[in-house]
Amino acid sequence: MENCDTLISVSWCIPVEPVETVIADCAVAITDGRIVDVLPTHDARQKYRPGVTVERPGHVLIPGLVNTHTHAAMTLFRGLADDLPLEKWLRESIWPAEQRWVSAEFVRDGSKLAIAEMLRAGITSFSDQYFYPEIVAETAVDAHIRCVVATPVFEVETAWAKDAADCLSKGSDLVHDRYADHPLISTGFAPHSVGMVSDDTFNDIRVLADQLDCSVQIHLHESRQEIEESVAESGMRPVARLARLGLLNSSLLAIHCVHLNEEEIAAFADAAVTVAHCPRSNLKLANGFAPVASMLQQGINVALGTDGAASNNVLDIFGEMRTAALIGKAVAEDAEAISASRALSMATIDGARALGISDHTGSMEKGKWADLTCVDLNRLHSQPIYNVVSQMVYATNSEQVSDVWVAGRHLLDSGELTHIDQADVLQRAAEWQTRISTG
Amino acid sequence: MENCDTLISVSWCIPVEPVETVIADCAVAITDGRIVDVLPTHDARQKYRPGVTVERPGHVLIPGLVNTHTHAAMTLFRGLADDLPLEKWLRESIWPAEQRWVSAEFVRDGSKLAIAEMLRAGITSFSDQYFYPEIVAETAVDAHIRCVVATPVFEVETAWAKDAADCLSKGSDLVHDRYADHPLISTGFAPHSVGMVSDDTFNDIRVLADQLDCSVQIHLHESRQEIEESVAESGMRPVARLARLGLLNSSLLAIHCVHLNEEEIAAFADAAVTVAHCPRSNLKLANGFAPVASMLQQGINVALGTDGAASNNVLDIFGEMRTAALIGKAVAEDAEAISASRALSMATIDGARALGISDHTGSMEKGKWADLTCVDLNRLHSQPIYNVVSQMVYATNSEQVSDVWVAGRHLLDSGELTHIDQADVLQRAAEWQTRISTG
Repeated sequence: MENCDTLISVSWCIPVEPVETVIADCAVAITDGRIVDVLPTHDARQKYRPGVTVERPGHVLIPGLVNTHTHAAMTLFRGLADDLPLEKWLRESIWPAEQRWVSAEFVRDGSKLAIAEMLRAGITSFSDQYFYPEIVAETAVDAHIRCVVATPVFEVETAWAKDAADCLSKGSDLVHDRYADHPLISTGFAPHSVGMVSDDTFNDIRVLADQLDCSVQIHLHESRQEIEESVAESGMRPVARLARLGLLNSSLLAIHCVHLNEEEIAAFADAAVTVAHCPRSNLKLANGFAPVASMLQQGINVALGTDGAASNNVLDIFGEMRTAALIGKAVAEDAEAISASRALSMATIDGARALGISDHTGSMEKGKWADLTCVDLNRLHSQPIYNVVSQMVYATNSEQVSDVWVAGRHLLDSGELTHIDQADVLQRAAEWQTRISTG
Repeated sequence: MENCDTLISVSWCIPVEPVETVIADCAVAITDGRIVDVLPTHDARQKYRPGVTVERPGHVLIPGLVNTHTHAAMTLFRGLADDLPLEKWLRESIWPAEQRWVSAEFVRDGSKLAIAEMLRAGITSFSDQYFYPEIVAETAVDAHIRCVVATPVFEVETAWAKDAADCLSKGSDLVHDRYADHPLISTGFAPHSVGMVSDDTFNDIRVLADQLDCSVQIHLHESRQEIEESVAESGMRPVARLARLGLLNSSLLAIHCVHLNEEEIAAFADAAVTVAHCPRSNLKLANGFAPVASMLQQGINVALGTDGAASNNVLDIFGEMRTAALIGKAVAEDAEAISASRALSMATIDGARALGISDHTGSMEKGKWADLTCVDLNRLHSQPIYNVVSQMVYATNSEQVSDVWVAGRHLLDSGELTHIDQADVLQRAAEWQTRISTG
C-alpha cells in the first residue's frame, strides 16, 4: 500500500487526454497537490492508503474548466445594461459606469464575487484583464484559484493608470517581480483592442513580452465596426496591423475573432495564434458567429471564454461549451462539426494551451496539478445515461458541480465553498448594488 | 379580511401581461386554483386570511413556462445519438430505436420522466406529440400538469396504429370523447411532416379539425432536405402545399420554421399561423437559424419549444429563452431584436397563445389558473440585481426553480416534487437504460 493525500472515486472519469476516453468506476489519487494516479476504483483501494477519501457515486470527474477570457470585477455590473449593441453598450453604459465606480475596492469585491461564482461553476483557471490587475492577482491567490493576470494597456488615463507607459510599467512589475514562477499566477499584457493602442505602444508591448517571455492577449475582430474603423484609420484590418507590428505569433491570444476571412484564418494557423471564443457574449452584443469549424479545420487552437458578466451575464463555461457546440454545428451546417468531445476539450486542455499552462493543468494526467471538477448526474434531466461526454455538454448546467479542487485543495465540497466566505461576498455585492443603483 | 386558499409572497413578480411590469415585494392570492389577486405583500397581509402562506424572500414569481413542442417519452433516448444531422439521426438512429422499443409502457415511463423534469424546471404547460397519446394524456392528468396532447398522424404502420385512418380514429376519440372540456388537457392532431402524410390524409385532418374545433401542429421547414424533397415530390415547398390544402390558418402551429422566405413569412402573418421556435434542437441537428426577428416584425406569434430530449438534450425553457434571445440578436445583427422581456413573453403568454390556452394561463392575471413558477435569486451568479427580467433570461438556469403551482396545486415545493415519486421515475429510467444499452 502506498500513501496518498486524497483519493477521489466517482462513477466516471473523463481525463480529456487521451481524447474520447471515459473510465467507469474510476479513482484519482492526489499527493502534494498533483495527480499521482488515475485508475479503476477497485485497484485504487488495493494500492493506496489515502489521508482523505472522497466518494461521489453517480458523479463524473473532469479536468477543471478553463475560462480564457473574462473581466472578473465586472460581475458588479451584471445586468446593468442589456440588449444593446457593442459600441453603444461600451460608450454609453459600460465606460461611463467604469469611470464612475471602478476603484481598488470595486475590483477586489467584484473579482471575489466572480471567483466564487466560477469555482461554484467548476472553473479552476481563468484569464483576467481589468484595471488594478495587482488586486486581481492578490484576490486569486487568496482564493487559491489559478489565474492568468493580463495587465490592461490603454492610451487614455484611468483611475488606475495615467497612460500606456504607466500601464506597461505596472504590468512589468507584476510579470517580472511579483509573480515570476508562482504556482497559481501567470501574467501577461492585454492591449485592449487595436483602436485604443498606438503603434508605438504595440512596439513597446512586443519588446517587453519578448524580454519577459510572457503572453499578449487582445480583443480582436469582435465587431464589424472595429474592423471598419481600423481600415478607416490605418488602411488595414486589425489582424493585418498586428501582423505588420510583429505581434501575430504563438504568444498571442486573440479574443473573439467573430469576423475572420479565409486569409486571416490561414495567417493565424501559420503563426500558431490561439483564439478565445466567447460565443454568448458575441451573440448578446449581436456581433455574430465566429467561424469556429473553419478555424479548427486549419488546426488553430480554439478555447472558450465567458467574457465579463456585463455582456453574458454569467461566468459559466458549461453554457459556453454547449453554445459553442450548438452554434458551431449550425454555422458550419454540419452536425458533426463540433462534437461533444471537441467542446469538452475546448473548455479544458485547449483552454490551458491558450493560456500557456497546459503542462500543468487542463487534463487528468499524472504529474499535472490536481485541478478537478466533479459533476452530479443524480438529476432528472441527466437520466438515462448512454454517453457521459454528451451529457456533460448537452445536458449539464453549472449548478450540478458538486466539488472542485485546485492544486489538490478542496475548494468546493458538496456544493459549499470551503475557502471563501460566501455570505460576505454576497453582502458586498448587495452594497455595490445599492451604491450603483442610487448613483 | 377575505379568505383565500394560498398566499405566495416574493421579492418580485413579473406578471408578463401587462408587459415590462415588475412588481417588487408582491403577493399572489389563489382560490379554487385560480389567481384572485396580485398586489403588494403589505396590502395582501391586510386584505387576505390565507389557508396556506408561502414566503419566498429573494425569489421571483413568473407565470409557469410553456413548452410548445416536445415528444416527452423520448427522454428515454436522451443522449442515445448525438452529433448527427437530422435525416441521418432520424433514419439511422431514432426511427430504428423507436421501432425496437416504443410501447405503451415506454411512453408511460418516458412521459413521466419528462413531466418530472419539466415541473422541476418550471414548465407548467406542454404540448406533446408521440405514439400512444392516450397514455401521455393519462400520465399528464396523474401528474396534474397542463398538456396539449396532439395525436400523431403517419401513413406507415407503427406499434401504436396501423395507418393514417387508425391514427385519426384514435385521435378523434381523444379529442371528442375523453378530453372535451378537461381542465388540464387540450387535444389536437399532429401530422408528422409533409413528407410523411398524403394529400388525402391532410384533407381528412382539415375536415376533422374543423368539425372538432381543435388545433393542428406539424414539423415544418425544419431542414433544407425536407424542403428539397417536397419540391422534388410535389413541385411545391411544404408551406405552399399546406396552403393549397387549406391548412394555413390560425389553428396551425408550425414547428421549427428554420427556413422560411419572405413570402412565406408574409403568408404566415396573413393567415395568423403560429410558430413553435425550437432553437437548441435546430442548432444541434445543424438545421440552421430561424428568422425569428423577421417573423416577430410581421406580427407572427412565436413561442418556444424544447423538442424531444433526443435532440436537445434537456427539456429546459430557461435555456431555450436565453438561446432564442441570443441567436435572435446575432441573426438579425441587432442587439435589440429580441429583448429579455420579449423572450420571457415567448416562453409564457405567447406559448399559451400558440396552444390556444391563453385565456386560462400564460400570464399572472386575475381569473386565470394559478400556473406559477418561483425562481430563487439567492445565488452567486444572480447577484447583484439591477434588472430582474434580464436576470431571468440571461442569468438563470432551471435548477433555480424552487416552486411550481399548476391550477393552484403546489407540485414543486422548495425544489422537491410533491406529487411524483422521483425515486420511482429514476428507477424506471435506469431500467430502460439497461434494456436499451444491452439491446
